[in-house]
Amino acid sequence: MSFLDEVPWNEEGLIAAVAQDAGSGKILMVAWMNREALKETAERKEAVYWSRSRKRLWRKGEESGHVQKLVELRLDCDADAVLLKVVQVGGIACHTGRESCFFRKLEDGRWVTTDPVLKDPSLIYKT
Amino acid sequence: MSFLDEVPWNEEGLIAAVAQDAGSGKILMVAWMNREALKETAERKEAVYWSRSRKRLWRKGEESGHVQKLVELRLDCDADAVLLKVVQVGGIACHTGRESCFFRKLEDGRWVTTDPVLKDPSLIYKT
Repeated sequence: MSFLDEVPWNEEGLIAAVAQDAGSGKILMVAWMNREALKETAERKEAVYWSRSRKRLWRKGEESGHVQKLVELRLDCDADAVLLKVVQVGGIACHTGRESCFFRKLEDGRWVTTDPVLKDPSLIYKT
Repeated sequence: MSFLDEVPWNEEGLIAAVAQDAGSGKILMVAWMNREALKETAERKEAVYWSRSRKRLWRKGEESGHVQKLVELRLDCDADAVLLKVVQVGGIACHTGRESCFFRKLEDGRWVTTDPVLKDPSLIYKT
């Protein structure tokens, strides 16, 4: 019985994954994992997700270098989400060049961008 | 144009929602919201989710009293997840009577329960 068997993978074979900065506690991103991604994450001690848009394993940082080193992996009560506490290499999790993907905040009924771009995405992703 | 229109609701009309304790930064739970739940959450300043099992709005704390007071609401870059920073009334988010739903940690290939039950669920939920 593997820890992977305790996950009731959804109809797409996925589980939600929340990445949290192990130091600051800041929520960095929410993504998805399939069985292979969760297995690799645990083995490599680095976050590996399933890219729903690209339909392939997404080894976080494979292009950007912004790898997430796994510190702790947790499962929730109904086993439909995992929590990764990570060290975010480069201090940037978001493809927009921001620390966190949650850079918009609801203010007076509008989503307002509150977090700065730390690095120009064109310098992160070589085309 | 409402802030609700910026969410690309999935095929089930839902978005993932992560609740984080506004004080400690601890991740309390991951649940789901439909349009009505997100609208109510913003209006009432209390977390309202969509219960996929019960197929109805779930005003968090409606039975347990463990309401989540909304401090901040954030949206991620591809708008498929929201982050709620909340004050967790009663200090218990999980239906198992624990502070957080993420009470299991992967250790040596097994999910190990690490967090204590703070209150017997039979005392939380009157049947």
